[in-house]
Amino acid sequence: MDIQGAIVDLYSLLGQRLSQSKSDLDIHGRSETHFPLSPPDAVAYPHNTDEVAQITQICARHHCPIVAWGVGTSLEGQTQITTGGLSVDFSQMNKILSVQPKDMTVTVQPGVTREALNEELRATGLFFPVDPGANATLGGMASTRASGTTAVHYGTMRDNVQALEVVTATGEVIRTGTQARKSSSGYDLTALFVGAEGTLGLITELTLRLHGQPEAISSATCAFPSVDEAVQCVTDTIQMGLPMARIELMDVNSIRAVNAYSQMDLPEQPHLLIEFHGSETSASEQAETFGEIAKEHGGSAFQWATKEEDRRALWAMRHSAYHAILATRPGARALVTDVCVPISRLSETIAAAQSDLAELGFENAPILGHVGDGNFHATLMFDEDDTTTRERAIAASHRLVERALEFDGTATGEHGIGLGKMKYMAQEHGGAWLIMGQLKQTLDPQNILNPGKLVPPRN
Amino acid sequence: MDIQGAIVDLYSLLGQRLSQSKSDLDIHGRSETHFPLSPPDAVAYPHNTDEVAQITQICARHHCPIVAWGVGTSLEGQTQITTGGLSVDFSQMNKILSVQPKDMTVTVQPGVTREALNEELRATGLFFPVDPGANATLGGMASTRASGTTAVHYGTMRDNVQALEVVTATGEVIRTGTQARKSSSGYDLTALFVGAEGTLGLITELTLRLHGQPEAISSATCAFPSVDEAVQCVTDTIQMGLPMARIELMDVNSIRAVNAYSQMDLPEQPHLLIEFHGSETSASEQAETFGEIAKEHGGSAFQWATKEEDRRALWAMRHSAYHAILATRPGARALVTDVCVPISRLSETIAAAQSDLAELGFENAPILGHVGDGNFHATLMFDEDDTTTRERAIAASHRLVERALEFDGTATGEHGIGLGKMKYMAQEHGGAWLIMGQLKQTLDPQNILNPGKLVPPRN
Repeated sequence: MDIQGAIVDLYSLLGQRLSQSKSDLDIHGRSETHFPLSPPDAVAYPHNTDEVAQITQICARHHCPIVAWGVGTSLEGQTQITTGGLSVDFSQMNKILSVQPKDMTVTVQPGVTREALNEELRATGLFFPVDPGANATLGGMASTRASGTTAVHYGTMRDNVQALEVVTATGEVIRTGTQARKSSSGYDLTALFVGAEGTLGLITELTLRLHGQPEAISSATCAFPSVDEAVQCVTDTIQMGLPMARIELMDVNSIRAVNAYSQMDLPEQPHLLIEFHGSETSASEQAETFGEIAKEHGGSAFQWATKEEDRRALWAMRHSAYHAILATRPGARALVTDVCVPISRLSETIAAAQSDLAELGFENAPILGHVGDGNFHATLMFDEDDTTTRERAIAASHRLVERALEFDGTATGEHGIGLGKMKYMAQEHGGAWLIMGQLKQTLDPQNILNPGKLVPPRN
Repeated sequence: MDIQGAIVDLYSLLGQRLSQSKSDLDIHGRSETHFPLSPPDAVAYPHNTDEVAQITQICARHHCPIVAWGVGTSLEGQTQITTGGLSVDFSQMNKILSVQPKDMTVTVQPGVTREALNEELRATGLFFPVDPGANATLGGMASTRASGTTAVHYGTMRDNVQALEVVTATGEVIRTGTQARKSSSGYDLTALFVGAEGTLGLITELTLRLHGQPEAISSATCAFPSVDEAVQCVTDTIQMGLPMARIELMDVNSIRAVNAYSQMDLPEQPHLLIEFHGSETSASEQAETFGEIAKEHGGSAFQWATKEEDRRALWAMRHSAYHAILATRPGARALVTDVCVPISRLSETIAAAQSDLAELGFENAPILGHVGDGNFHATLMFDEDDTTTRERAIAASHRLVERALEFDGTATGEHGIGLGKMKYMAQEHGGAWLIMGQLKQTLDPQNILNPGKLVPPRN
């Protein structure tokens, strides 16, 4: 590993677009959650695919580790490079390259954020639905296989990335997928790179599937007597085949946090936030059916937000929930759990989580989640230097994961592996994890792409 | 390669469930379309995963090629083993292992056919939507990444396989995916095995996503003055965001064939066959909106089939179209083209195809397809021993593929690669095809799993 040799060559290629300023290194070495600072040796700001290819070739020549960086909203330390090396910041590759309205696709560079994309699409009548809350880049979202509030209806990044351009570990440029909506031609390399967290290649271009902006959107909040009743309502709604666009759970602690942060006055009870997309008739019909199911579970008469500004306020509140929760304890760090279980086990998983959390001193930890997918988050807070509580948070997260795996679920529904979930890979995947290691060895034999992440350590 | 040595060991394992009868070898060596007979040396009928693992270990020890066999409905010779070797027939691994109605999933062995599955599911209110027409096995459908008439709404096998059990080339058993609806944990190995045509492993168990049987289903036929107007109607309908469950094109030649075969009396014009799934209100609202779009394109007042028996008759007619077409020329062999293009290029692709086909003497070749996906088929017929016409059919298919690739489409929307489409892999995938070859080399270093298929030949 000759990182300094790489930096010399990278400087010749990029000039001022290679940065070693302390502030830049710190920005690219920090984590959104609880992982310690781990700065890279330099940050590159490429302008195009060809430069990314040349950067990778230089790094390959010098065995210099390389990690991609979008806007740094990942929650498991995915972009932190613990070996030293180069952070490739895609913020200057942020062009929307083409919109194909008839094909309902868009082709973008990886540094475009989801909000910028939807702003640009607004006039076309189309939108990109995947919505993890944070204004992440599309390259980052693809790399972590992100999802969020709308996955229950529109799917995750797995379902909405149609084609990719990727720079491989040797600095070659390949394309996966086509502009056709489906294909039976060969291995699904697009799906292989989505969720690979930059360990198999650097994504330099994405073709994404768009959806028609629905004619009518109805959003609502509905309070329930207990989390269990709210979850039962969700499973019944799914059973009915009601096509919900979003269905989100917020427990009492979450509601208290957003009430304070977003100046709302929601009743201090567990809530579901729901959204229906459709025609005027179908959206209101769905809402009515949902109302009947909710009532059976003690749900309150729900509060509708049909005006766009009210809906925006509602989902802005939901999206700011993480910051609202952090604001309840200024200066604290957080660990956000992310298990996902089969819907049939969701209710008991949340109940068990609540009891585990209480036992470990986190009885006030807010729980919220994308319950239509069986995915929920608890936010566990601790002071920066309180290692005891930090360790207890890690222990609490560990118990949640153990239960999820016992129920045939996954350690991470949408936040990915990064540094935080490596310890569960063997247990979750068994022999398949070794296969992942073999694929990595094949596509990145020098182990320069985000080393130490996702696959078994090499001997 | 010591096939005879493998057979001796396989016989010890399987006894009478290893067959070398000529009729068995012929059945497993034939193609549904135009590829010459290519019998394996033996056929194995395993009962469970453990036996599949042992079979594979024996084959690995003797370097004996091995290919999986479902019911043999694939159209590109995927199950034909040109090197000699073993065909593993999954017909005795045809159990539905468990239905999880709350999770809307089912776990099956690979030999279950889609019709048997849906028959079994009927009482649950759920169904498995992927419908390639043929009553294929689910293992086969996963391996070719099949789709068919409902993909426009419910997606392909890519979207509906949630987890797999796979026997690798060394005879190890691995599991990919979990019972949770989504996960960000590691490489998407499920997607890697789906569509791999048995070149990376043998699928021994599948967990599939189910969907609620819609409250209301409306099907209809609608005649158009030209194929172009029908296709324009499809693209307009998609633009409107109307959630069609199926939208199928049949040209005049197809209509003539099904009229004769299924005793229908559809007008001799290009048709769309449409289906809407939803509530009573939404299905009829969608139908009404579609009617307005169809009228703008000269569509006839459409013929509704809302009664279940009428709908069944309608789709039975569509599903028998291939046999109806073959019946117009008894004894003939057929080549079925399968390109898929971006919807924006569909109209010109079909027009160009019609002109190419006419030029090569196939002016009566029926065209039909899943136009909502940009995917269509022309059926080119020739007598078994008429090699001149067979070559012209191959030339015609070649022209269609060339155009599809030029339009950023794919050589195969749903039939897969098999023997027929290998020649387009380099052109369609470029450097990505070499990556596929590297993955194959890693997971099957001895090249015993369906050798000669899908990846670049080894030196």
